[in-house]
Amino acid sequence: MTITITAFERSPDGGRGLARDTRVRWALEEVGRPYDVRLVSFAAMKQPEHLARNPFGQIPTYEEGGLALFETGAIVLHIAERYAGLFPGDADARARAIAWMFAAVNTIEPPILDLMTAKLLEGDKPWTGERLPLVMDRIRDRLKQLAARLGDGEWLDGAFSAGDLMMASVLLRLRASGILDEFPNLAAYVARGEARPAYKRAFAAQLAVNTR
Amino acid sequence: MTITITAFERSPDGGRGLARDTRVRWALEEVGRPYDVRLVSFAAMKQPEHLARNPFGQIPTYEEGGLALFETGAIVLHIAERYAGLFPGDADARARAIAWMFAAVNTIEPPILDLMTAKLLEGDKPWTGERLPLVMDRIRDRLKQLAARLGDGEWLDGAFSAGDLMMASVLLRLRASGILDEFPNLAAYVARGEARPAYKRAFAAQLAVNTR
Repeated sequence: MTITITAFERSPDGGRGLARDTRVRWALEEVGRPYDVRLVSFAAMKQPEHLARNPFGQIPTYEEGGLALFETGAIVLHIAERYAGLFPGDADARARAIAWMFAAVNTIEPPILDLMTAKLLEGDKPWTGERLPLVMDRIRDRLKQLAARLGDGEWLDGAFSAGDLMMASVLLRLRASGILDEFPNLAAYVARGEARPAYKRAFAAQLAVNTR
Repeated sequence: MTITITAFERSPDGGRGLARDTRVRWALEEVGRPYDVRLVSFAAMKQPEHLARNPFGQIPTYEEGGLALFETGAIVLHIAERYAGLFPGDADARARAIAWMFAAVNTIEPPILDLMTAKLLEGDKPWTGERLPLVMDRIRDRLKQLAARLGDGEWLDGAFSAGDLMMASVLLRLRASGILDEFPNLAAYVARGEARPAYKRAFAAQLAVNTR
């Protein structure tokens, strides 16, 4: 069955790979599945046709036969369950990989989203200069705990998994802020993710869209 | 095998059911599994013994035989996969239930966490009075989309699922703000969740801890 995902017709990040379709592209490249891409404009994302795919008017979405999914985490989890390459075979190890997926989107990403919001939506507010250091310190608190758990491990729990794919993708959003470089083992962890051939193919594919 | 979860020795919410162990208790009640609770103090949560269970020093955690899990979403998903009652039998419907679990924690909860942070950690800051309405409007934007999708449906996608359990739990955090009441179908949806016998048992169990 053909897999079709949606992505920005023109990503706000200009092709730096931070739009969430890159996470889904990466997962599909890891499991070796081809996919089609339907590009959507910001205007089209708020129209009924796209809202039927994703009620929050966002990308990516995922269609495969009669299945239509939204939420990047759920899409990556579905790919990991359906095709080999992103989940360990052992049931307990698989449950732990899912724990890292949720940790990425519900523990690490919220303070990072807060930083994006502060810069993009409140950048012109009088409080932003004083408030940004507080937001950045909340990110550091989480990264300190994550760095302590990772230690000198290559990945978060044994072999590379969908948990690492999600965590590295979330951490990538921090690179421009400089915060990631304060945690050398996390910076190296993200670099290992970016060095994977599947990531490189995913990155190139989204870049091609945004530089065409 | 015995299931053991962790919960606050004394919840910051005084037993209003907003601590995340309530979500796991609710899931276990829905599937009819007994469980033990290990209560942890704020000091104990930052010690190596608990950090081995959850690297971010939070509750709840979940132990069952040799498996140790953290992240509420991952724990609820594990319970839903292992025991009947929280996931539909059809594979596509199950994938969509997981999409709603991720939507709860990664699309709806982040702006709600932002509101909690604004009140709890920045409540004394000079900008908070002017900033709170912006934060609340970002929550309203999401709830408007969620309310449009729910319409007059009983649950988000057919029968009650782990996706509804997570979404109703996240929305419950908004009740004190009054925002939930601006969306009558969402308020009724949350009330349907609270009316479930399994939720009532879960709520009573956490209340008993916090009023002992």
